Amino acid sequence: MQFYSDGYRPGDPDIRPAAPGREHAAELPAEVDVLIVGTGPAGLVLAAQLAEFPGITTRIVERRSGALEKGQADGVACRTVEMFNAFGLAERLLREAYWVNETSFWRPGATDRSSIVRSGRVQDVADGLSEYPHVIVNQARMQDFLLERMRNSPSRLVPDYGLEAVSVAMADSGEYPVTATLQRTTENGDDGGAPLMVKAKYVVGCDGARSAVRKSIGVELSGDARNHAWGVMDVLAVTDFPDIRLKAAIQSAGGGNILLIPREGGYLTRFYVDLGDLDPADRQARSRFTVDHIIQTAQNVLHPYTLDVKDVAWWSVYEVGQRVADRFDDVPAAERGSRSPRVFIAGDACHTHSAKAGQGMNVSMQDGFNLGWKLAAVLEGRSPASLLDTYTGERQAIAQELIDFDTRWSKTMSSKPKDPDAPDQDGVDPAEVERQFVEAGRFTAGFATDYPPNLITGIDTHEHLAKGFPVGERFYSAPVLRLADAKPLGLGHTAEADGRWRLYAFADAAAPTESGSRLAALCRHLESADSPIRRFTPQAADPDAVFDVRAVFQQHHRDLMLNEMPASLLPRKGPFGLVDYEKMFTPDPKSEDIFDARGIDRAQGALVLVRPDQYVAHVLPLDAYTELDEFLSGIFLPA
Amino acid sequence: MQFYSDGYRPGDPDIRPAAPGREHAAELPAEVDVLIVGTGPAGLVLAAQLAEFPGITTRIVERRSGALEKGQADGVACRTVEMFNAFGLAERLLREAYWVNETSFWRPGATDRSSIVRSGRVQDVADGLSEYPHVIVNQARMQDFLLERMRNSPSRLVPDYGLEAVSVAMADSGEYPVTATLQRTTENGDDGGAPLMVKAKYVVGCDGARSAVRKSIGVELSGDARNHAWGVMDVLAVTDFPDIRLKAAIQSAGGGNILLIPREGGYLTRFYVDLGDLDPADRQARSRFTVDHIIQTAQNVLHPYTLDVKDVAWWSVYEVGQRVADRFDDVPAAERGSRSPRVFIAGDACHTHSAKAGQGMNVSMQDGFNLGWKLAAVLEGRSPASLLDTYTGERQAIAQELIDFDTRWSKTMSSKPKDPDAPDQDGVDPAEVERQFVEAGRFTAGFATDYPPNLITGIDTHEHLAKGFPVGERFYSAPVLRLADAKPLGLGHTAEADGRWRLYAFADAAAPTESGSRLAALCRHLESADSPIRRFTPQAADPDAVFDVRAVFQQHHRDLMLNEMPASLLPRKGPFGLVDYEKMFTPDPKSEDIFDARGIDRAQGALVLVRPDQYVAHVLPLDAYTELDEFLSGIFLPA
Ligand SMILES: Cc1cc2nc3c(=O)[nH]c(=O)nc-3n(C[C@H](O)[C@H](O)[C@H](O)COP(=O)(O)OP(=O)(O)OC[C@H]3O[C@@H](n4cnc5c(N)ncnc54)[C@H](O)[C@@H]3O)c2cc1C
Ligand SMILES: Cc1cc2nc3c(=O)[nH]c(=O)nc-3n(C[C@H](O)[C@H](O)[C@H](O)COP(=O)(O)OP(=O)(O)OC[C@H]3O[C@@H](n4cnc5c(N)ncnc54)[C@H](O)[C@@H]3O)c2cc1C
Repeated sequence: MQFYSDGYRPGDPDIRPAAPGREHAAELPAEVDVLIVGTGPAGLVLAAQLAEFPGITTRIVERRSGALEKGQADGVACRTVEMFNAFGLAERLLREAYWVNETSFWRPGATDRSSIVRSGRVQDVADGLSEYPHVIVNQARMQDFLLERMRNSPSRLVPDYGLEAVSVAMADSGEYPVTATLQRTTENGDDGGAPLMVKAKYVVGCDGARSAVRKSIGVELSGDARNHAWGVMDVLAVTDFPDIRLKAAIQSAGGGNILLIPREGGYLTRFYVDLGDLDPADRQARSRFTVDHIIQTAQNVLHPYTLDVKDVAWWSVYEVGQRVADRFDDVPAAERGSRSPRVFIAGDACHTHSAKAGQGMNVSMQDGFNLGWKLAAVLEGRSPASLLDTYTGERQAIAQELIDFDTRWSKTMSSKPKDPDAPDQDGVDPAEVERQFVEAGRFTAGFATDYPPNLITGIDTHEHLAKGFPVGERFYSAPVLRLADAKPLGLGHTAEADGRWRLYAFADAAAPTESGSRLAALCRHLESADSPIRRFTPQAADPDAVFDVRAVFQQHHRDLMLNEMPASLLPRKGPFGLVDYEKMFTPDPKSEDIFDARGIDRAQGALVLVRPDQYVAHVLPLDAYTELDEFLSGIFLPA
Repeated sequence: MQFYSDGYRPGDPDIRPAAPGREHAAELPAEVDVLIVGTGPAGLVLAAQLAEFPGITTRIVERRSGALEKGQADGVACRTVEMFNAFGLAERLLREAYWVNETSFWRPGATDRSSIVRSGRVQDVADGLSEYPHVIVNQARMQDFLLERMRNSPSRLVPDYGLEAVSVAMADSGEYPVTATLQRTTENGDDGGAPLMVKAKYVVGCDGARSAVRKSIGVELSGDARNHAWGVMDVLAVTDFPDIRLKAAIQSAGGGNILLIPREGGYLTRFYVDLGDLDPADRQARSRFTVDHIIQTAQNVLHPYTLDVKDVAWWSVYEVGQRVADRFDDVPAAERGSRSPRVFIAGDACHTHSAKAGQGMNVSMQDGFNLGWKLAAVLEGRSPASLLDTYTGERQAIAQELIDFDTRWSKTMSSKPKDPDAPDQDGVDPAEVERQFVEAGRFTAGFATDYPPNLITGIDTHEHLAKGFPVGERFYSAPVLRLADAKPLGLGHTAEADGRWRLYAFADAAAPTESGSRLAALCRHLESADSPIRRFTPQAADPDAVFDVRAVFQQHHRDLMLNEMPASLLPRKGPFGLVDYEKMFTPDPKSEDIFDARGIDRAQGALVLVRPDQYVAHVLPLDAYTELDEFLSGIFLPA
């Protein structure tokens, strides 16, 4: 966390100075750069990202009259915690969330099949997947955190509540080619007055499963529309069920299945109760369920344990099929490449699926995170508009994987447990549930994403130089010491969600002061007239405004003198030309050496390029100047 | 962090529900329970503690017109971070603070004595002292955190700014025997109008070195009034000094000494520059120093390195002698025991010393923390007024140790470095400075406090049962798993600053389900009619309202079933009678076993009693029912 570079300022450093003139205007402007529709997880991550760029006019409209207060999703995958760290929100999230440390499995007893017994208990997230835990917190709180980040950003972005997007239409040309038609929503049944028209350079529909934006651009969901219903309730209850504070998957012999999720604060519990498939012809099917029905089912499943519900905080019958949109923007396959997209959809607007794997909020947020920096780069003139094509290319494939995974997983979870005395009957072996759960761990934690080569993801020719940073996967942080102040920290944790690319130069064995140092040579190259970094960085900007170059040395931190390090690793910044001392790192002597932990080639070193959304874009040899230049030239425009 | 026990509530759980009728009244009431004078670190810790008790009317007045914005102290000892954790503030403090990981030492070069060279570099806080780092953050920010905690507390306590305490006077009797005379301060030179009189049960003078409250109760400071001056400045500067981001003690041959403290945010630096003793007869001596003088001295000391100051955030000439008050309340030695105190002083009002060991803010906060829970216990009728006698008894001795330490340490720091070529001349060997620094580590980190036996600190007869928890010292947290949810956490970290006593029952080897379990027997005793806990806890209150009993088992967490644990470790609480699942712990298989780490007798177990301010009050065998009863009977009144 860096601050005060332009002078000391009293108060909370997380409340950054507002950009000049960027106090939020009450009226929606007639023209905006980006209009986001919907303040769910997808819309708010996107808005929080764009709020970092006060030069871009972003507005976010929401049909509801205010912020979400309760209900909906609650599972926060490790990957999402990593992203929250980049928004400066991880500490507070971890402080108040429930941590899913272990998951237990229950099934009908061998002798008395009417009573459930614990069949297994596993560590929820395998070691070595992430330095962060899998946590649970109300979706409303997750959204609060993002809203706060937006409010405290240089743009002071706040949502415009009570505005519903009715449709979007595209003009063939013009600076603001998309026109959104908005309607004021009212709580008292008024008609809300005349519609509002807003012109935008880009519109992003984060407007949920029934997305109006999706319909406007003619995108269809495909997949299994079969509606499976789950009763969901957040309750305060008294029970003698011993795993009430563990995530528990419970299969009873007769009464159905429960997924039990302990919640933040120590007392609240969420129950997912399987209510089976609903008849699609019967539109009233869902509304016939009551909370008592859900409670009753939960009580049956938990037998012989009791469940005395004292207070229901929220409940719902949540009904979904597994469906996915075939594209996430307004460019039909036939036109792809001939024009760049202007309207996008993200989150539930693109993919719907069960809540059983806890992916809804997480994948939606990653959609927003993927798109945000791309829009910023294009709008600020740093990258060509073709960068925006990668959004649908990357995220549609992820959504498809999610749907496929969820189809398998929710089938398993809804199946009856196999009766050992009736092996011919249908059912899943409870051991099989546990096995599938463990196998799915990487996916549910959010780490199965592996973007294939495209404009921003290189070919993995040099991946062997940094085996722990596979190209296309998220940059997995590891412990280091910061050279200047010997602070132990995660290398990835210092990367904020500020739209910048990070170049991690893992040094060769030579000290940077030695003449043979390949790392020192790279630094000289990056300082030279041939430097791609200089070419793509505006002259008036800080030297690290577009590319944040960081070095990790192999030496012990006490063996390197700060004032002997390459100049480009001590960049001068801000109005006073102060030195930024936070670019250099060494192994942390109290942790595993990062070169070992991430399989870095100690003789050659490695240059790891990381995208603003934390995915590894490329791995190159330290001296592959031409390849580096070529790769960056595809993504960046000369400043 | 526990919340929602009385129902789900949207928003930030750190903003706790206001107690009925406790929105802050604009007018100062004519009568209050506690009047705190001064919003420095001492006053604000005290206020934050009392704010937890909405049944107690607390007000805090401050002469200044608003919150402190800059300057003053910045060193935050590990012990203070531990205390901040109890106020729920550690995560945010650690996030934004500078971490003092290593300290370096510089002295004149052996060949060229006009140039400084690094003579050593040490880890700042030795391993095993605390799980928290030593950090640096502006005193104003530390106070902001406490102000926020007060504002978010059930009492919604906020300071009354612009009110100066002129004096306090004591009546012989009455429910509100102390009368404080307050004067409105004005920024424009008005006279502030007529004085205000406020009657209080207790008044605490946290009004700094020139304390008006101290003078009113006739307490004198004794010690060395000799005024030594330090120039202090917080600057943004460009330098080639390689340890600019390390805490550095620098002794030059000719130009004096500097203590350099890197500051939060990555750019700011504090310099302490020794300006020598001032002539006490010359009242103008201090005001003749300018910031240029301080900068010039710093530049001289740093030679051959350059220092180019770009911006001065704050500077001051800070002038102190080592002085301490002989008592911290209104009861003269001759009357001690015959009446209990009504007026207290805390912080700089009781002790002044140099800034060189970074103790001012920390020791002042500990004063406030020591007094807060005692006032609450007496005012709520849980403890006799004699409890308040322990405040001066405990804290005066600590202050005396601080003064003695500071006298030695600041002498060392102000001394010229010994010239190896002139061994007969005065001076300290730089190696000696480093040695003294390391030796002083326990003290400066805040862990030298060891309260001797008194009403609330037992005799250490049974200390061998829990060698890692010496009686009188602060309870040193260690890693455990929470049984119910397998969450890895610090055993001490779950203890909030809520005025409750904690009884940590470390189990004997038997599982609590075995008949021979001494721990289970203790639980039965504590549930029985003979239970001291029941005797001292109001019937209508939660069973853990006064004593928070926690158990640590030796078994692996997967070998214990929650529903088979002793009932008193699963207390039913709150309006819904919900079970509190956060009382039981087991060793964390991924950390050192707490029984080993803290030297617990595995055969016998141990009962460790911890005061609300986190100091170990007593260590007893699990079955020492009589001793437990006797000890608690001295401190508590039957409910
Ligand atoms: C009622 C409900 C219950 C759910 N329960 C669970 C659960 O128990 N467990 C689980 O894991 N997941 C649950 N989900 C799914 C999970 O919440 C979603 O996967 C996740 O919120 C997707 O995020 P999103 O931002 O794409 O969309 P959403 O969170 O749906 O956000 C869309 C936002 O857009 C607004 N909006 C919609 N249309 C318009 C418009 N035309 N103009 C302006 N604003 C508009 C909506 O009001 C909403 O705020 C639930 C979802 C819903 C809607
Ligand atoms: C100007 C200054 C500079 C300092 N610089 C450093 C430094 O560089 N490094 C360092 O380690 N320590 C420094 N200190 C010391 C450190 O700040 C103190 O040790 C610490 O603040 C003590 O806390 P306290 O709460 O006891 O008193 P203080 O922080 O002094 O707080 C006392 C408060 O009471 C108020 N007050 C005083 N009299 C009255 C009254 N009659 N009525 C109402 N309100 C009143 C004051 O305005 C103040 O807010 C400095 C102190 C001061 C005053």
